[in-house]
Amino acid sequence: MLLIKTGGGKDINWDGVCRDVAEIRATEPVILVHGASVRRDELAARLSVPVRKVVSPSGVSSVYTNAEAMEVFLMAYAGLANKQIVARFQNHGVNAVGLSGVDGRLWQAKAKKEILIVENGKTKLLKDNLSGRVETTNVGLLRILLDHGYLPVVCPPALSFENEIVNTDNDTAAAVMAGELGLERMVYLFEAPGLLRDPNDETSLISRIDRFKIEEFLPFARERMKKKLLGVKRAVDAGVKTVYFGDGRTPNPVKDALAGKGTVIA
Amino acid sequence: MLLIKTGGGKDINWDGVCRDVAEIRATEPVILVHGASVRRDELAARLSVPVRKVVSPSGVSSVYTNAEAMEVFLMAYAGLANKQIVARFQNHGVNAVGLSGVDGRLWQAKAKKEILIVENGKTKLLKDNLSGRVETTNVGLLRILLDHGYLPVVCPPALSFENEIVNTDNDTAAAVMAGELGLERMVYLFEAPGLLRDPNDETSLISRIDRFKIEEFLPFARERMKKKLLGVKRAVDAGVKTVYFGDGRTPNPVKDALAGKGTVIA
Repeated sequence: MLLIKTGGGKDINWDGVCRDVAEIRATEPVILVHGASVRRDELAARLSVPVRKVVSPSGVSSVYTNAEAMEVFLMAYAGLANKQIVARFQNHGVNAVGLSGVDGRLWQAKAKKEILIVENGKTKLLKDNLSGRVETTNVGLLRILLDHGYLPVVCPPALSFENEIVNTDNDTAAAVMAGELGLERMVYLFEAPGLLRDPNDETSLISRIDRFKIEEFLPFARERMKKKLLGVKRAVDAGVKTVYFGDGRTPNPVKDALAGKGTVIA
Repeated sequence: MLLIKTGGGKDINWDGVCRDVAEIRATEPVILVHGASVRRDELAARLSVPVRKVVSPSGVSSVYTNAEAMEVFLMAYAGLANKQIVARFQNHGVNAVGLSGVDGRLWQAKAKKEILIVENGKTKLLKDNLSGRVETTNVGLLRILLDHGYLPVVCPPALSFENEIVNTDNDTAAAVMAGELGLERMVYLFEAPGLLRDPNDETSLISRIDRFKIEEFLPFARERMKKKLLGVKRAVDAGVKTVYFGDGRTPNPVKDALAGKGTVIA
């Protein structure tokens, strides 16, 4: 079984992803997790809802989510992006079913109502935050769908243990899911050739990372890439043996990543 | 098995619906279909996307849906309303799974790219319309979820046979689904006590309608109510024996409807 996590960028070659998944599904089940950050930001701008990006004391960036921001999040991720991706898979002959982490308690998260952030050099406490960390997933629901030939197309938000809809880190959630499903391989696709030594130089690709030395490479990972690498570490800790970082913009994004054209963490 | 169709109005007592469904599910499986027209209209206004309501030559109202309107539709129905309803059911201990008609080809529709409308007394042809009529449904997917204890929470849009996302009449889709599932009973909830002789007089309730004489009551049904009654006729033609129209605003909307407090079509 293969879990593919696709970023929410504009230039992801979705037809390529669909073609690759249709081919791979002939030999093994696939689960797809996707983001929609660019769409969320666009919609928030149109609705004049501020997207407040914050940084934790350990340097990890995230988005502060109040009730208004959560509505935008639901619309962009579970409404627009998820259903358009599902329709595209249908067009490639893949019977996809879109699910958010809320559906069937697919992603259950420990709510973090209060978060510490660093702003202008000062540490502050933010309250009323609708976010959380995924701790358990409903792998039973995924297996039912897979057993009947469906492709689960999964996106945030998650559901807290108190049944509130909460924003969550997609990469962490995917890693928890991979661990609970006992997966050996994961693919992360985004708008870069892989992990780069210099984020401004696409030729500075790091081809191979020892899965037990991920922390050594954290200095090369900025912002969202840092979360991805931390997600990979979590996945490895949960038993995943190989993680492929690949370029979502190529003609065959998934097959290229599996062929080791990006960064292989093994 | 019971299929409940809930309108998209603001004053639907969702906690009441959740409580009733939780109780009814102890003895029989339930499927819920919901609208979100008020949210769609609100979002369209915030985004300055016009909602073009049109009337067919036979007097049935619908919404003209171009690509921009479809994005608003997806966000309001499949994103915001569907996931918030699912979370509310979870809060009532019901393991709900939200699905649009696109997911798993749940609702397959024959596209109507061109529609005839009447505007200012003249009949016109509108092109590039993203809507369609649901002809078949994936009852297999519903049965899989029901067999494993999930509550399917279903909303439009549908998927055309050419794999385009299309707007569709919810009431018709629910009727087709009820027919294919071989259901005997359906409940329609909305913001009125039932079918009224005078839509402005809530005491003018029509308590009982012979299911083979639905057409005689069409003159009492305006706009959206007309579509509901036509949906009911379709459901009856497909084998449904009793349809309950009920007030979604009461403390126990589903139980009250099943107790015959609204309009019973039998």
